[in-house]
Amino acid sequence: LSDARFFRRSGPYSLSIIAGRIGAALSDGAAPGLMLGDIAALDTAEPGEVSMFSDAKHLDACNASRAGAIVTSRKLAGLVESGTPLLIVGDPRFAFALAGHMFHPRPPLVPGIHKGAHVDPSAVIGEGSQIDAGAVIGPDVKLGARCHIGPNAVLAQSVVLGEDCSIGANSSISHALIGARVRISTNVSIGGPGYGFVPSPTGALRVSQLGRVVIGDNVEIDQNCAIDRGAMGDTVIGDGTMFDNLVHIAHNVQIGKHCMIAGQIGIAGSAVIGDFVMMGGQVGIADHIKVGSGARVAAKSGVIKDVPIGVSVGGYPAYPTRIWHRQTIALLRLIGKKAE
Amino acid sequence: LSDARFFRRSGPYSLSIIAGRIGAALSDGAAPGLMLGDIAALDTAEPGEVSMFSDAKHLDACNASRAGAIVTSRKLAGLVESGTPLLIVGDPRFAFALAGHMFHPRPPLVPGIHKGAHVDPSAVIGEGSQIDAGAVIGPDVKLGARCHIGPNAVLAQSVVLGEDCSIGANSSISHALIGARVRISTNVSIGGPGYGFVPSPTGALRVSQLGRVVIGDNVEIDQNCAIDRGAMGDTVIGDGTMFDNLVHIAHNVQIGKHCMIAGQIGIAGSAVIGDFVMMGGQVGIADHIKVGSGARVAAKSGVIKDVPIGVSVGGYPAYPTRIWHRQTIALLRLIGKKAE
Amino acid sequence: LSDARFFRRSGPYSLSIIAGRIGAALSDGAAPGLMLGDIAALDTAEPGEVSMFSDAKHLDACNASRAGAIVTSRKLAGLVESGTPLLIVGDPRFAFALAGHMFHPRPPLVPGIHKGAHVDPSAVIGEGSQIDAGAVIGPDVKLGARCHIGPNAVLAQSVVLGEDCSIGANSSISHALIGARVRISTNVSIGGPGYGFVPSPTGALRVSQLGRVVIGDNVEIDQNCAIDRGAMGDTVIGDGTMFDNLVHIAHNVQIGKHCMIAGQIGIAGSAVIGDFVMMGGQVGIADHIKVGSGARVAAKSGVIKDVPIGVSVGGYPAYPTRIWHRQTIALLRLIGKKAE
Repeated sequence: LSDARFFRRSGPYSLSIIAGRIGAALSDGAAPGLMLGDIAALDTAEPGEVSMFSDAKHLDACNASRAGAIVTSRKLAGLVESGTPLLIVGDPRFAFALAGHMFHPRPPLVPGIHKGAHVDPSAVIGEGSQIDAGAVIGPDVKLGARCHIGPNAVLAQSVVLGEDCSIGANSSISHALIGARVRISTNVSIGGPGYGFVPSPTGALRVSQLGRVVIGDNVEIDQNCAIDRGAMGDTVIGDGTMFDNLVHIAHNVQIGKHCMIAGQIGIAGSAVIGDFVMMGGQVGIADHIKVGSGARVAAKSGVIKDVPIGVSVGGYPAYPTRIWHRQTIALLRLIGKKAE
Repeated sequence: LSDARFFRRSGPYSLSIIAGRIGAALSDGAAPGLMLGDIAALDTAEPGEVSMFSDAKHLDACNASRAGAIVTSRKLAGLVESGTPLLIVGDPRFAFALAGHMFHPRPPLVPGIHKGAHVDPSAVIGEGSQIDAGAVIGPDVKLGARCHIGPNAVLAQSVVLGEDCSIGANSSISHALIGARVRISTNVSIGGPGYGFVPSPTGALRVSQLGRVVIGDNVEIDQNCAIDRGAMGDTVIGDGTMFDNLVHIAHNVQIGKHCMIAGQIGIAGSAVIGDFVMMGGQVGIADHIKVGSGARVAAKSGVIKDVPIGVSVGGYPAYPTRIWHRQTIALLRLIGKKAE
Repeated sequence: LSDARFFRRSGPYSLSIIAGRIGAALSDGAAPGLMLGDIAALDTAEPGEVSMFSDAKHLDACNASRAGAIVTSRKLAGLVESGTPLLIVGDPRFAFALAGHMFHPRPPLVPGIHKGAHVDPSAVIGEGSQIDAGAVIGPDVKLGARCHIGPNAVLAQSVVLGEDCSIGANSSISHALIGARVRISTNVSIGGPGYGFVPSPTGALRVSQLGRVVIGDNVEIDQNCAIDRGAMGDTVIGDGTMFDNLVHIAHNVQIGKHCMIAGQIGIAGSAVIGDFVMMGGQVGIADHIKVGSGARVAAKSGVIKDVPIGVSVGGYPAYPTRIWHRQTIALLRLIGKKAE
């Protein structure tokens, strides 16, 4: 059971209501009126909870589970011997995620501006928005409906947020046009100056950074990321792209839609990333590199040449995965070892 | 001498009192009543300060030092020709660290809640705690005795801190149960959502992140780290584990006791790290990997296979240190070079 | 045209005034009275804007550009066929940067202390300084003239800033002596404790971190960086050194003048970096390493041996660039591939 101090629960819901919401068929004999109150893992679930069985290697855990009901696929359902009521779906992981959101919907906002917040009179605050203590909202900021600005977050002059956005505690946003349903977590910096300099007689001179950060809809940016504004032109993040913690995005980077950008990745200036690109943790992408849609970059790789559409690469310098793996094997052979 | 603007000094103390507190024997002829006021390095110490001689390669610096007294070992003491009073101990580095804490104890708190802080009436603030300006403490937060919440730090709903904890300026803590004597520095994010998604018809859908961050006693977390809460189940940090700056800890990671996690390390989801593990800077640990107790991971390594208890590894993919070094040497030989 | 919501423009200025300010000669037939209002890239510039042509490979874009005037070199000027008025200079990139600063000077401060800021009465605030909402300024802090302390930034006890410094939103500065014209961006931590421990019977014991961070003039530190104070002695950053996002600088590091420290670099304790050193993103420098003046370190390299003055290195462990490249080529040959 999730910790009620931190997680507000909705429900309980009957098995039939859950089945309806996640698009499941019930297994034979499952009682449609069975009431369930939360989701949990197979090994920790209690009789009042729903769990998930999505991989045959967890069959023993599934059969041993005390869960009240289990979300699974038609194929895996045939393996289950425990008699637990099953919620049979096409994609158990997606359906289980839906169940999670059913029991744990986004907590309702408490609309209003905390008296300890500082909101410039020229700012437009969308209906139903919640502005927490210590938040600072500058002149001409525009928030869509139902935005949540966390404690001590700072939105500088003219920042625009669409509907249903949330900005976490202690984050700092400037020079940004942000779409709807964007969630930015804590200690994130958006819109800072890009790292562009020219040599001058007195040392490096910062080139004026005159672009913006333009973020699409449904983007989520986790803790302590830094996304710079463009120099001339914008830094652009497409719809549905997701950032893990401590990611560095330099000026004028363009990232397409639905990319997965794992923790501690750094993408240097003016790199262009397509749609549906997946990158592992600690990857580095050199400046002006193009990574095609659907490409995958293995964790810790350093990409210094363009990656074509759909190609998977790894290593530093990054090569197509097969070459990278052969390099690894060859280097082991050099010292008389075999790769396991 | 440390800069008195920033560092409050206790003392001065006599040589005999210092010897008592750090468990030292005095060298022959050392005046027990000699008064000393601070610690310093061999080359910068003044006559009123204590220094340390812990490595024979610094013998010249030791003999040339103007320090009023020097902490050293029995063995090294025999090498010293300067006649400086010696504080002879079994472990000079530990004893010198104790001397440092003697001259520079933690500054006393100024108990109370700054009028510019925002503390929810339902929060329980332990006796003797200090809450600084701009700090935001949410409903049902519980602080043990003598906690220090720095300026503009944010503790979200129901966070629990044990006794004698400190949270640095601009840090953001949520969904966390934290032990005693835990020190969290500035711009740290604890308890943010883990990076867990499932594919859905409209793009990646965040899986509800319903776990917590559970931190033991005596943990220290340095600047700008990000530690995510669990998805189902908790992210767990054991007693006495120490984090350097800009570390990324993903959801459901379990780290044992007394580990040393250097700067910019990233540990991916559900990895399990034993006790007394040491990792160098910029290491990456892949998801679900197990690193056994007492293992060591060289800086910048990428660990994608389990590391047995007590084994040292390096490289990417990481191999036992000896193999890694042989790879480095073999690669140099390939181009006709010798490793130095 | 830069987005006027975010970027205040000065001007417009006549071509002759611009030429005077950036040290340019006008091309034949250029109308000295032509009025121009901003800078822009060749492909997006409008007739009222100045652009730059600094590389022959952009000749087509230059000839097609709608820009009202173009900054270029004498040599490149001979290639231009579009008849656009040219501003001919020795170094187009530097001159164009000057033009950018001409149209976009630093916005004037709004001197004064926001009523939502918390300034200790013992702090000295230089004339013309601007202290924003939620900023917290501790006892005995000293700010030079015309400093800007952003919203929710925290300056702890006794921090000293020279003239014309700016500290971004949500940054935390302690134990620091900072020169003039230093710009620190958002969510930056300066002066936190270094990661120094000794083993003790009860686990690792933090060694008292009794040094400071000493930063020269004209240093710029971008988003989410963390720079630790010294243990004994100081962490020192020389004049004109520039830090990109998410950089980690450990205790007692010394960095010289005019270095370029790219994103996500980590420099371990007591490393000594000379002047004019350039490092690419995600580089790691091991503790106590010396990197000579003028050295260059390729992105993602791990430096574990000293780098002599003026040498370029790459790889992990880092070797001189030529060796590193030969290793890369040799490893490809091992598997029957040629480097492209």
